[in-house]
Amino acid sequence: MRLGPGVEWAAHAMLAMAALPNDASAPAARLAELHELPKASMAKHLQALRRAGLVTGGEGRRGGYRLARSASEITLLDVVVAIEGDGPVFACTEIRRRGRFAAPRQVLAGRCGIAATFDDAERAWRGCLAKTTLDGLATPLRAPTSRAAVRWLARLES
Amino acid sequence: MRLGPGVEWAAHAMLAMAALPNDASAPAARLAELHELPKASMAKHLQALRRAGLVTGGEGRRGGYRLARSASEITLLDVVVAIEGDGPVFACTEIRRRGRFAAPRQVLAGRCGIAATFDDAERAWRGCLAKTTLDGLATPLRAPTSRAAVRWLARLES
Repeated sequence: MRLGPGVEWAAHAMLAMAALPNDASAPAARLAELHELPKASMAKHLQALRRAGLVTGGEGRRGGYRLARSASEITLLDVVVAIEGDGPVFACTEIRRRGRFAAPRQVLAGRCGIAATFDDAERAWRGCLAKTTLDGLATPLRAPTSRAAVRWLARLES
Repeated sequence: MRLGPGVEWAAHAMLAMAALPNDASAPAARLAELHELPKASMAKHLQALRRAGLVTGGEGRRGGYRLARSASEITLLDVVVAIEGDGPVFACTEIRRRGRFAAPRQVLAGRCGIAATFDDAERAWRGCLAKTTLDGLATPLRAPTSRAAVRWLARLES
């Protein structure tokens, strides 16, 4: 079980957008170049983040992306769900109900213990990611020494 | 992010083996047939469980598999790791160190906050799975009404 690389890329792009000045936006190409990532992938992930309502904006000559709401209102779980989808980690297909020796329906009425344990585990996992907001994550991009990087991201410098 | 179906299949096969009488073993074909699963996949997953030291035995005319240790000493996490591998859910590739605006090494010395949050989340997820042992999972296969199923699994009945 592994998250795709897009989660790391999107999370860092979100942190970069969180460092932008008010009303500024950053083009996909610069969000990619910031960490030497493939531009096409970054553009695709930004579209997924936009579909999830986490960023606004788009491509185009004067286009660019910025956070759709405050960095304190966007969690790492929001980013994971935007990029990877919201399906469960463990997909129970109730195989215990199959086969000639399957117990009667009333015996199997409750949630399968295996699935219930994975539910608990996923709730714990999501809980950790849901309590971490973008503004709770340290990034050098918010330091004064990164002013040039942020101005470049926002196309205030070339 | 999703676990493959093999985790569900292997977990139920482990529960079935946990219900076997002492010294009995169950062939891969019957462990598959019990829940109407593909035999070749079950055989492959049983080999993974064996490589992980969770079951002993093998194929062959008189072959079969049984738990390598007590059901109280095998956790759901053991089964997940045997089938899916032990790599981290989130693979940090330190992209923050890349690019012409990357902060100096000493600024980036600590673990990235994004990776640290995923580490915490994975620890919570693994913790839930690691505290659930096979004997802590309810299964109708341990009930007296399943005696025929268990005898069939162990080839004591055809």
